[in-house]
Amino acid sequence: MPDPPADSTPQGLAVDVLAIAAHRDDVEQTCGGTLLRMASRGLRTAILDLTQGEAGTRGSAEERAREAAEAATVLGVGWRQALDLPDGAVENTLENQLKIVRVLRQLRPRVVILPYWQARHPDHAVVASLGYQACFLSGLTKPPAVGPTAPSAAPAVRPIAPAAAPAVRPTAPVARAEGESGLPHRPFKIVYASLYADVRPSFIVDITPFIEQRHQALLAYRSQYANQPVGGGLFVPEEEIRERTFAEARHYGLLAGVRYGEPFVQKEVGLVDDLTLLPVQTL
Amino acid sequence: MPDPPADSTPQGLAVDVLAIAAHRDDVEQTCGGTLLRMASRGLRTAILDLTQGEAGTRGSAEERAREAAEAATVLGVGWRQALDLPDGAVENTLENQLKIVRVLRQLRPRVVILPYWQARHPDHAVVASLGYQACFLSGLTKPPAVGPTAPSAAPAVRPIAPAAAPAVRPTAPVARAEGESGLPHRPFKIVYASLYADVRPSFIVDITPFIEQRHQALLAYRSQYANQPVGGGLFVPEEEIRERTFAEARHYGLLAGVRYGEPFVQKEVGLVDDLTLLPVQTL
Amino acid sequence: MPDPPADSTPQGLAVDVLAIAAHRDDVEQTCGGTLLRMASRGLRTAILDLTQGEAGTRGSAEERAREAAEAATVLGVGWRQALDLPDGAVENTLENQLKIVRVLRQLRPRVVILPYWQARHPDHAVVASLGYQACFLSGLTKPPAVGPTAPSAAPAVRPIAPAAAPAVRPTAPVARAEGESGLPHRPFKIVYASLYADVRPSFIVDITPFIEQRHQALLAYRSQYANQPVGGGLFVPEEEIRERTFAEARHYGLLAGVRYGEPFVQKEVGLVDDLTLLPVQTL
Amino acid sequence: MPDPPADSTPQGLAVDVLAIAAHRDDVEQTCGGTLLRMASRGLRTAILDLTQGEAGTRGSAEERAREAAEAATVLGVGWRQALDLPDGAVENTLENQLKIVRVLRQLRPRVVILPYWQARHPDHAVVASLGYQACFLSGLTKPPAVGPTAPSAAPAVRPIAPAAAPAVRPTAPVARAEGESGLPHRPFKIVYASLYADVRPSFIVDITPFIEQRHQALLAYRSQYANQPVGGGLFVPEEEIRERTFAEARHYGLLAGVRYGEPFVQKEVGLVDDLTLLPVQTL
Amino acid sequence: MPDPPADSTPQGLAVDVLAIAAHRDDVEQTCGGTLLRMASRGLRTAILDLTQGEAGTRGSAEERAREAAEAATVLGVGWRQALDLPDGAVENTLENQLKIVRVLRQLRPRVVILPYWQARHPDHAVVASLGYQACFLSGLTKPPAVGPTAPSAAPAVRPIAPAAAPAVRPTAPVARAEGESGLPHRPFKIVYASLYADVRPSFIVDITPFIEQRHQALLAYRSQYANQPVGGGLFVPEEEIRERTFAEARHYGLLAGVRYGEPFVQKEVGLVDDLTLLPVQTL
Amino acid sequence: MPDPPADSTPQGLAVDVLAIAAHRDDVEQTCGGTLLRMASRGLRTAILDLTQGEAGTRGSAEERAREAAEAATVLGVGWRQALDLPDGAVENTLENQLKIVRVLRQLRPRVVILPYWQARHPDHAVVASLGYQACFLSGLTKPPAVGPTAPSAAPAVRPIAPAAAPAVRPTAPVARAEGESGLPHRPFKIVYASLYADVRPSFIVDITPFIEQRHQALLAYRSQYANQPVGGGLFVPEEEIRERTFAEARHYGLLAGVRYGEPFVQKEVGLVDDLTLLPVQTL
Repeated sequence: MPDPPADSTPQGLAVDVLAIAAHRDDVEQTCGGTLLRMASRGLRTAILDLTQGEAGTRGSAEERAREAAEAATVLGVGWRQALDLPDGAVENTLENQLKIVRVLRQLRPRVVILPYWQARHPDHAVVASLGYQACFLSGLTKPPAVGPTAPSAAPAVRPIAPAAAPAVRPTAPVARAEGESGLPHRPFKIVYASLYADVRPSFIVDITPFIEQRHQALLAYRSQYANQPVGGGLFVPEEEIRERTFAEARHYGLLAGVRYGEPFVQKEVGLVDDLTLLPVQTL
Repeated sequence: MPDPPADSTPQGLAVDVLAIAAHRDDVEQTCGGTLLRMASRGLRTAILDLTQGEAGTRGSAEERAREAAEAATVLGVGWRQALDLPDGAVENTLENQLKIVRVLRQLRPRVVILPYWQARHPDHAVVASLGYQACFLSGLTKPPAVGPTAPSAAPAVRPIAPAAAPAVRPTAPVARAEGESGLPHRPFKIVYASLYADVRPSFIVDITPFIEQRHQALLAYRSQYANQPVGGGLFVPEEEIRERTFAEARHYGLLAGVRYGEPFVQKEVGLVDDLTLLPVQTL
Repeated sequence: MPDPPADSTPQGLAVDVLAIAAHRDDVEQTCGGTLLRMASRGLRTAILDLTQGEAGTRGSAEERAREAAEAATVLGVGWRQALDLPDGAVENTLENQLKIVRVLRQLRPRVVILPYWQARHPDHAVVASLGYQACFLSGLTKPPAVGPTAPSAAPAVRPIAPAAAPAVRPTAPVARAEGESGLPHRPFKIVYASLYADVRPSFIVDITPFIEQRHQALLAYRSQYANQPVGGGLFVPEEEIRERTFAEARHYGLLAGVRYGEPFVQKEVGLVDDLTLLPVQTL
Repeated sequence: MPDPPADSTPQGLAVDVLAIAAHRDDVEQTCGGTLLRMASRGLRTAILDLTQGEAGTRGSAEERAREAAEAATVLGVGWRQALDLPDGAVENTLENQLKIVRVLRQLRPRVVILPYWQARHPDHAVVASLGYQACFLSGLTKPPAVGPTAPSAAPAVRPIAPAAAPAVRPTAPVARAEGESGLPHRPFKIVYASLYADVRPSFIVDITPFIEQRHQALLAYRSQYANQPVGGGLFVPEEEIRERTFAEARHYGLLAGVRYGEPFVQKEVGLVDDLTLLPVQTL
Repeated sequence: MPDPPADSTPQGLAVDVLAIAAHRDDVEQTCGGTLLRMASRGLRTAILDLTQGEAGTRGSAEERAREAAEAATVLGVGWRQALDLPDGAVENTLENQLKIVRVLRQLRPRVVILPYWQARHPDHAVVASLGYQACFLSGLTKPPAVGPTAPSAAPAVRPIAPAAAPAVRPTAPVARAEGESGLPHRPFKIVYASLYADVRPSFIVDITPFIEQRHQALLAYRSQYANQPVGGGLFVPEEEIRERTFAEARHYGLLAGVRYGEPFVQKEVGLVDDLTLLPVQTL
Repeated sequence: MPDPPADSTPQGLAVDVLAIAAHRDDVEQTCGGTLLRMASRGLRTAILDLTQGEAGTRGSAEERAREAAEAATVLGVGWRQALDLPDGAVENTLENQLKIVRVLRQLRPRVVILPYWQARHPDHAVVASLGYQACFLSGLTKPPAVGPTAPSAAPAVRPIAPAAAPAVRPTAPVARAEGESGLPHRPFKIVYASLYADVRPSFIVDITPFIEQRHQALLAYRSQYANQPVGGGLFVPEEEIRERTFAEARHYGLLAGVRYGEPFVQKEVGLVDDLTLLPVQTL
């Protein structure tokens, strides 16, 4: 296993990739395979859910917290927490931006994954701009009123994962980052997970070896996906979830000439070293 | 210097990158830096000009042939020839496609660079579709009437470069390819050089170390660029050419966070191994 | 079973829907489910393949003709023939347009299905414009030189389907149309099957009840799909074909809230009678 | 007259189509003909204006309320009210979303018409996202803080229409809905009226038989449109209004091959039952 | 009346604006008002119709020639001729390009108006690229085979307008141009008339003072527009033509804040001298 | 020197062009050349910076104020002030809109320049919509709560420029405008400076004669641009700034056929008087 690239950077990143999403189980659906792939390369991954799922029809916030922790373990994610933004009413306010800034300065990710900015669920669309602006603010030496807004006694970042959920690479990196958490940090790259958006992706991540494991992570949300009373009983719920998510992964895989893929959009143009190393066959 | 990647492929490619353009000196302007960069990585590059420049106001076809050979040497290109399509009236016909197929089967490139499909000069736009269809036909086991159309005595591919122009990697690979030239060959990748197109590029190639050498290649076309009677004499021609081409290279470099760049469009989505290796900073 | 709508039109259409494609087995992949759905509504469907598949690596033109006839039977298609355009080199010429005009005037379809105008295979892209222009010419009272171009002895429309292939609604309508075949006919609607195009569809056709039957039609092309030597043997060919085509059908189905779907593009805006009858849920 | 389709749905919808707009007289201009067409099919229609027009140069809020009620009668609309958002400063806040949620849960529409999301008037653009998010929240079982935010004494939905304005289908459906108004309701479909937006519509609604009646509804706003001091007096105001609105209706009608039309955008793809029933001729 | 700007240019242009279209009466519909406006400014205008209308259902080519000449007089156009390309089957060939080059070199226009490149009628779309390539070729000092292709005895440009049709500014400028007609000429600007295209225009030309005269020009085509057997007789044909064309002109006028307008697309960006002189109000 | 056009308008505009931007030195980079060009035509220009730069890494707000005043003098701008919105956290609120409305009603500009609505820096994107809505509100006779929101003692528009910075056309116009500042004012035109946006501009302004002066204005920000510790010391900072900004100006100049240009987007279509006066050569 290669050394994590973070070690070779001067800043000593605590986390390589941080996925931010509105709801627990969003990340599992849109970029869970990518997080698994990154972890398999020795990279440190993390998930920040912005809400705790209190608006969901089924399952209490506590149940979902337990499930999220279990899913994190399946995904090989070393850090996962949830903020307390209102489920179904996430807003892009300075206050919410600053809550995320705290996490960014603690975890110091090189890459941040956000949901795509057009979505059926309003929370998803809002997180795209909310997360972007947080990444920007996080890099300012003198950000607007970062201290006074957040009461020091109630930390904006509350660890939701129960103690029993063993983090994959638990203490050292986070501890190191903790010490630097007041310092500005600007992620190098922001990409947008576009699975549920009706948009052409900029690129695909091949998740073929991880598709079954991703599926297990999603099934950890038993309150959401188990025992679902679907129509005629032709499909047991688990089979339908599997069939839908595998079909979408196959569709995006076919776009890039691999078996299963997850789609992403980036706003920047690419930069290519060597034309002969370009993947994805033209003809 | 690393081994050329072609050696590690089963097919034994004769050429790694082939740039196809309508006119001599097109390639120098739109992807000369990229060809230099590829050559510096030990890759074998080639240029196919489709016309011989007889419609140009200044310079005979013979002069331009000599200049093209000189520019090829500056660019480190091992093979350069010109077809005989009519300058200013390039058409996308089966006959023209088959002329290019012959070259493709001889050189067997992994990557083909074509001009972007929207352009002020009609020849450039036509070459995009003409070249694409040639790449497609080249891969067919039973292409339509490839033999009878081209008279065997007059080879469709005529070496225009004078004997005195030393090819960088002269004989062996071409000879090896020659033997296979009847076999189908489908390039893995087609990209479109979009410098003069008013379109957002898919990616940039960093040509910073090669910008001066690219400029020398362009200046090899003395019949076109030397002693040009420009307006008030404020700028000597060479300076104006330099200033324009460097400004455009700088613009595209800035898009990707490098000093000088050349822009390309690809039709396929990308495929990314590792999010933390993605270049081009977001913020 | 309802009466075919064609009967209620004054012109007495011989065919309701005609799918035109470059290669045998194109239609099976891109709109086979739609043809099955139309047939199940009592509509008369037909297929015109423009080439006979001589450029294919495997299978002779004769084999493919037999397979195409079998597939037509599975699809419930009453008429299927192939023109003799060169496989891999279909061109949009007046001559080729007029070959299609003859078929259009004979079959007099209300709807013509063409492939989408951007495609990896050059033939597909060409058929989009070739077919469009043929539909236009077919409606002119005085089209350019329709008679002399096509030699009377060799009919442009040659029945490729062997006699043994029983057409579903065999003789009467075709005979009736035959008598009118000299008269101009302009299809009411042209739609573009966009399955293999990387484009947002205008609409989806729900093919859920027909997906297995469509698959059978595709498998009729034994020369193409049977005994394929795929990599490690993890998947037998038939399973891979099934898995790919079902995954794409599922992707497009999900876009429209149904199980399996086929995507189409239309150039016209829509016209809606009643907002409360609009399908496809927003939220 | 056919039964309203709402009756055949299990939920017992009180209203079939609800048009939400920023200002009184917006709906008359952008979808008045569509509301008339829907009413003529026996569907129950309603209008929610978000502001009361206090920023308008001419006419008091009271005058506009009376005119709106008169216009509602002309449009055959059974329910019309106005919220109290500030005219010229409509904001997309949770509080405003919840004001609309109350109406949605009371009226329980199957279809909601919103203004298109790009517009010269900032209020129009805001209503597109404000209304969308309200539709989303309205469907949540546990929406964020729906109760406490709105003071119970001052109902968010205040009936603005004076008592004298006879609602077309007055009491029963509203009464029935009232009883269910606390229950979640998610509209099936959201469409965007795009008349004043410089965007290609997804579809047109044919309003030919209703254009004169729509015009009468608009003229009900005497405070806005009567006695207008226009330039040289070449056109009396009423004629100019007529001429402009009829010309736009004609333009959109021509797009779809009908006489007068109103344009709409939908975000979803379409779903088509039968290709031969597709309207709008291609050639 | 100001001097025509052509006089102040060194090349001595014979014509300021040349409109090229596929069919007689195309120009009247898409840019007749613009030609009138240009003529009213003292500019010299011309029309080149590429076909003679033999595919039309009604009216012989001779009738249409007479009508075209009459319409030209109404439009104040000094030169109008028709080439002999096949109606309904215009193709973009080098031969056809060269026929247009002859006209361009004779008339030496500063501006060429072409139809937009997407259109229902295939001829219109073809003329966009055919005309563009002709403009390009016309500027080459050494164009491909301009002499031998066109037989010298049969001039590519045949005057179709009967002698009786008095050209507005008849002999002098044409005579002057005639002498230079062999010399290369590249139009400064190409714009695309986009009236019938479903595309956002780059700019509008205000034709308010000329709308009635434009209508008279269209009515000159009596073989096309008079005595048309329309449905129920509610509208006499002339009224319907008027109503449709005025409504479209009004729609495009409203886009730019004028009464009647004609839409155009240009491929180039604009260049603005003074921001305070920018027309078309934002708010 | 011609009279300023403002004098010929009935409203007696105080300022012809007002550029609004988030940060001091934004305007210098994106439209400084345009402001110089407008001033050279005798037009009155002004700059409103919305923040005071407290989030910047280097330079205090006071330093930046002094530099901004100096830059204003170099740009020939008669009025420049800064609001007090938080640097790095500009929000589009009614309160902020009303702060800008006060300035608009005081200065009464015909043209307002805003940053383009997509940008890396979140402040820039917000200013596009914030400024647009302020322009809209400024034109309302009865805007929402313009008085009470802003405390009368602390003027929303505080002159930041120190007294020592001599404004170019200092007192008279401002004084005249001051008297009318309560009256509604709607700018005629809003354009968006798009230099740093990856978008095709609508038009270019030729700044060739002003590029050196624009550069001097930028260099006035010594706290930002002087003594910058860049990498290997190959370029002194001033040279790098020059090289980057000149290259971008050259790129946009080349788009429009001039030497140096600044790009702008407008939402409206254009309106063209005379096709022969259209700038920017096609071929």
